[in-house]
Amino acid sequence: MKALVFHGPGQTSWQDVPDPAIKDAADAIVRVDAVTICGTDLHIVKGDVPEVSPGRVLGHEAVGTVVETGGDVRTVRPGDRVLISCISACGRCRFCREARYGQCREGGGWVLGHTMDGTQAEYVRVPFADLSVHPLPSTLPSDEAVLLADIFPTAYEVGVLNGNVRPGDTVVVVGAGPIGLAVIATASLCSPYRVIAVDLAASRLAAARDLGADATVGAEEGPEKLVEDLTDGLGADVVVEAVGVPEAFEMCTRMVRPGGRVANIGVHGKPATLHLEDLWIKDVTITTGLVDTHSTPVLLRMMAAGRLPGAAMVTHRFELDKMAEAYDVFSRAGDTGALKVVLGAARHDTVAVPPQEQ
Amino acid sequence: MKALVFHGPGQTSWQDVPDPAIKDAADAIVRVDAVTICGTDLHIVKGDVPEVSPGRVLGHEAVGTVVETGGDVRTVRPGDRVLISCISACGRCRFCREARYGQCREGGGWVLGHTMDGTQAEYVRVPFADLSVHPLPSTLPSDEAVLLADIFPTAYEVGVLNGNVRPGDTVVVVGAGPIGLAVIATASLCSPYRVIAVDLAASRLAAARDLGADATVGAEEGPEKLVEDLTDGLGADVVVEAVGVPEAFEMCTRMVRPGGRVANIGVHGKPATLHLEDLWIKDVTITTGLVDTHSTPVLLRMMAAGRLPGAAMVTHRFELDKMAEAYDVFSRAGDTGALKVVLGAARHDTVAVPPQEQ
Amino acid sequence: MKALVFHGPGQTSWQDVPDPAIKDAADAIVRVDAVTICGTDLHIVKGDVPEVSPGRVLGHEAVGTVVETGGDVRTVRPGDRVLISCISACGRCRFCREARYGQCREGGGWVLGHTMDGTQAEYVRVPFADLSVHPLPSTLPSDEAVLLADIFPTAYEVGVLNGNVRPGDTVVVVGAGPIGLAVIATASLCSPYRVIAVDLAASRLAAARDLGADATVGAEEGPEKLVEDLTDGLGADVVVEAVGVPEAFEMCTRMVRPGGRVANIGVHGKPATLHLEDLWIKDVTITTGLVDTHSTPVLLRMMAAGRLPGAAMVTHRFELDKMAEAYDVFSRAGDTGALKVVLGAARHDTVAVPPQEQ
Amino acid sequence: MKALVFHGPGQTSWQDVPDPAIKDAADAIVRVDAVTICGTDLHIVKGDVPEVSPGRVLGHEAVGTVVETGGDVRTVRPGDRVLISCISACGRCRFCREARYGQCREGGGWVLGHTMDGTQAEYVRVPFADLSVHPLPSTLPSDEAVLLADIFPTAYEVGVLNGNVRPGDTVVVVGAGPIGLAVIATASLCSPYRVIAVDLAASRLAAARDLGADATVGAEEGPEKLVEDLTDGLGADVVVEAVGVPEAFEMCTRMVRPGGRVANIGVHGKPATLHLEDLWIKDVTITTGLVDTHSTPVLLRMMAAGRLPGAAMVTHRFELDKMAEAYDVFSRAGDTGALKVVLGAARHDTVAVPPQEQ
Repeated sequence: MKALVFHGPGQTSWQDVPDPAIKDAADAIVRVDAVTICGTDLHIVKGDVPEVSPGRVLGHEAVGTVVETGGDVRTVRPGDRVLISCISACGRCRFCREARYGQCREGGGWVLGHTMDGTQAEYVRVPFADLSVHPLPSTLPSDEAVLLADIFPTAYEVGVLNGNVRPGDTVVVVGAGPIGLAVIATASLCSPYRVIAVDLAASRLAAARDLGADATVGAEEGPEKLVEDLTDGLGADVVVEAVGVPEAFEMCTRMVRPGGRVANIGVHGKPATLHLEDLWIKDVTITTGLVDTHSTPVLLRMMAAGRLPGAAMVTHRFELDKMAEAYDVFSRAGDTGALKVVLGAARHDTVAVPPQEQ
Repeated sequence: MKALVFHGPGQTSWQDVPDPAIKDAADAIVRVDAVTICGTDLHIVKGDVPEVSPGRVLGHEAVGTVVETGGDVRTVRPGDRVLISCISACGRCRFCREARYGQCREGGGWVLGHTMDGTQAEYVRVPFADLSVHPLPSTLPSDEAVLLADIFPTAYEVGVLNGNVRPGDTVVVVGAGPIGLAVIATASLCSPYRVIAVDLAASRLAAARDLGADATVGAEEGPEKLVEDLTDGLGADVVVEAVGVPEAFEMCTRMVRPGGRVANIGVHGKPATLHLEDLWIKDVTITTGLVDTHSTPVLLRMMAAGRLPGAAMVTHRFELDKMAEAYDVFSRAGDTGALKVVLGAARHDTVAVPPQEQ
Repeated sequence: MKALVFHGPGQTSWQDVPDPAIKDAADAIVRVDAVTICGTDLHIVKGDVPEVSPGRVLGHEAVGTVVETGGDVRTVRPGDRVLISCISACGRCRFCREARYGQCREGGGWVLGHTMDGTQAEYVRVPFADLSVHPLPSTLPSDEAVLLADIFPTAYEVGVLNGNVRPGDTVVVVGAGPIGLAVIATASLCSPYRVIAVDLAASRLAAARDLGADATVGAEEGPEKLVEDLTDGLGADVVVEAVGVPEAFEMCTRMVRPGGRVANIGVHGKPATLHLEDLWIKDVTITTGLVDTHSTPVLLRMMAAGRLPGAAMVTHRFELDKMAEAYDVFSRAGDTGALKVVLGAARHDTVAVPPQEQ
Repeated sequence: MKALVFHGPGQTSWQDVPDPAIKDAADAIVRVDAVTICGTDLHIVKGDVPEVSPGRVLGHEAVGTVVETGGDVRTVRPGDRVLISCISACGRCRFCREARYGQCREGGGWVLGHTMDGTQAEYVRVPFADLSVHPLPSTLPSDEAVLLADIFPTAYEVGVLNGNVRPGDTVVVVGAGPIGLAVIATASLCSPYRVIAVDLAASRLAAARDLGADATVGAEEGPEKLVEDLTDGLGADVVVEAVGVPEAFEMCTRMVRPGGRVANIGVHGKPATLHLEDLWIKDVTITTGLVDTHSTPVLLRMMAAGRLPGAAMVTHRFELDKMAEAYDVFSRAGDTGALKVVLGAARHDTVAVPPQEQ
């Protein structure tokens, strides 16, 4: 089959690789029908994620069709159209028993396109398939459903739920890239009074307004002053960090009200300064986290009901073999306006006969 | 009356000052029967708390007898023996309505011995008396009850409850001074599996064991390795910072397990480094906070029932007018072994006729 | 002044009574600008609520203008336009400290039009004014704001919050009278997947659809079968009882899924049968409750932002002195289609000079 | 092998039956080292549980040694000493993903000794072994550990956790049989202020005191009056029903304070009357439930640390083949004083070589 292979920093190729095969009775082989690219993939390609070895097939988000299952797989069958979650789950370890799948200790967690071959390929082997894929209703288009593999549950769990957004809250989202926009979209499930988006790029702030932000402000145009003014000097109930740099995190801790919450989603490469000399007395809660995808069934139901704006996030579509082009467009988001790029989705409604039955 | 007056950094005197008088219909005047000294008082005396102006009477913890009440006070009367909470509460602002009294916006919060004259005196004016004092059962000795003014609710709310200690947890307490010891004592209400105390001083670690710590370790003897070994490499469920220096806080963030909590109680004067490059993926919750004293009625009930080890925390007792001596003993805790020093408690069982009725 | 006085079962009159006056330093006198009638008022008039003595002025919901305050009132002043909550709160008792104002032990709770004279009058004395009235933004019309006095917080707290409605849930509301409709409206703040309304009257089911119900079913047309079919035989996540008769409650307990919740709002006059022989194994939670109105500030903010459909609930408007006519229309809701009737609201934007200053 | 077989109402025999064998790759075969009898077993023998067919091997609680595992079992191996939970869990269905294993939809839940052959036998086949057995530390005696199979997690989850017992609470336990006594024992993990036990039998009330009840009262000696007196007329914070008859449940609903909780554990055969005419206004929460055993790892850790009084609950011990005698003693608890009877525990420390390796 064809797959996108990482060959070391700056080097990838869409090339022939052996077809994946069942290795464990809990595995499923899934034909990839739609796949997307994550900001994390760009970090991997740059060489920032040393756990990813040369030779690895990249990608951890996809919609596909099950073509083969191991003997221990009970909940999906060949022919089923499924979402492949970015998080796999053994279902047996202490963390999986608490639905904290992202911290799985027994072979799950974030493994696809990381420590195992991933989804930017024609086929992928998914471990622990029962707890790692989700059957999809036929009415949900693949190019929307693929957003449920990572970005939507990450935004909702690590941003909205960790931030404990409640009806009536003022929420600030720092960073209006894809993940920040997904926070704005999923926060609506918790009915904040007001969502304020902060970013450097005017185009992203425009996208934030389209997705429901009530106010937007340039990162260099005094966002702290705006939040102070809008909240009678108190600060925001919830501030979500969706950038991943120390300055953004530190701004978040200055914007939060006494008793409020800062939910970090950003993937950080450097430490930040925590101003405990100000914060110790302020009753602040700061959370970090990797997505667990425990919310995927709820988000899936809400998206299928038209309650989550999936389509608005997808700016570019490609055939599956245009992987290099898609990476290029996504990596130059400032120029191209790319939010999420989806490959291969046109195939979503043609469920082929599984190969082994042909 | 006599009171301990702050005259600027390094300068205090036990001296004559005017008797306090009712200024607001919600005030009560309380005769001080037992009072203690807080680590924060030492910071004030050093000049570290600029909000405290010269001329201020210090102290924010006491047990006393109500001698006069304003016209709006409904729940206590002259003659009542009461605990004076370190936190006053207007009862009307948005924070008070959520029982977040420490953040009161309308004249409450931590005001005694801070922005109003305090309790290290023969008499004190307590604002918003209905929500700021607690009637005491006659069976509870004053020198134990006075620990409920600050240290016990602070340890319980900001350490144990913010840390969400659950039955079966491994809890690490970094810092075994009075507040850390009170964390160990009050954590027992939540039945952790194991409490590990960390400190530099062997005498404090001995006190920690006396108060129920299951394991103790010198701060320079590899506490991180011990926690790792005791938790199969996972880390502690809850880590409580009870020191107030960056190194201690940073150690806490290294000791916590994925999905665990770091509860900061320490009063910090400097920023700490937050290693988000490690923590972003680790599902960690970090909390800070000033005590609200919403838990005081529960702690009072439990102490009166012998379920909290109050007496074990009081190492020294003085007459009320030996304030200078008591400060000296408390400030040299390393030499004197002082945990909590109590002044005046001998009077606790002689409830005098209120002055105005004589 | 004029007021609606209860003279025993079936007897009321709009008549002259003495103007109310400040009796306690925490009181406020409020001129009534808009007032509504509650189903409970109809019960009182029938004689079903024996605590209401002849001579009592009825009514516990209003919007008005403060004309005088006692010496202890700190948060409102004469001239302020306010919502009068159906629940008064002393702010000092153990229940008020937990924001459980409906259970106030010291003179608050539901007292207006019950054990004290109420709001169906030109003026009303409100006890504990600081915690019992809410200043209103000028942009919020009185005939919508008056719904925040009782019906909206009751529906939200006792139905939606007690029922713990979560994003993605299936919610059944049994009874589509005013309170059931308000459950449908406020449940939207928690983003259920689907709300199913059950009632006997087609007109009420139509109103339910207008307010956002996704499905409706006649109480005699097999609602249990519908819920079963829509939930793959599992039952609803949350079922809200908004009728107050045993049959309705019992139907709720048959419709709830294992692990689900039944939130009772209905005012019951008779016991129901609880089928513990079926329910003991089913992990069901049943809640009852009187509103606390702790959610009023949030609901007020959301209504002012156009996020709660207030106006749609008001079907009839009257001048304040048309009280008898309004009671007649409201009591014959089956014929008149009345949901909420509002009296006097036309005055909402003319804030008069308080009488004592004229 | 030998096993206790149900032959219809009133008829059981300890007889030869075929050895169990692996039927599914997730199964384990466990040699039974210690087993106990549940009150539910008595109901089954009487014929009260029609789902149990003649020919069924009874029993759902045991400690044993794994002798064989299916190909899909990953967490235990032959030779492992394990607790067999009364609840099996598929780990894949929506309820298992929420750790609500008692409601498992895919073959788990309470199946042993119910719809599958159980543990009152020399060997038992355990389905979904990875999520249905728990490895035991060698230091924990089998005759204590066996209490973790059902009675302790049931008491803790369905009584203490559903009842939300908090530090300082007044808890009433109605029924001081084995399950009520286990509530008293496990409630200590949540530090109530006071536990009051109610029962008809003086011997059980004595056992309640031994296990930590602070007060006891005969069911016919005015328990409602006692609770009223001890709580200033308010009622108990939490009331646990551990009997299973309408009268006991109804007493619970009269004893609970406004805002309190009634947690039903009792297995009921008849409906109760729910006095909604009193309760609708009282902010009461009523819960029912089957145990999920999600708390078993925590309880196991606490029992191994000597923090739960296991041994005190075991009044009689028998060899495994004395099943008839053990049933007789347990069924006549009023005469024999039996709380829990354990069979076979003497073998707990001799872990034999698994049969298939001999």
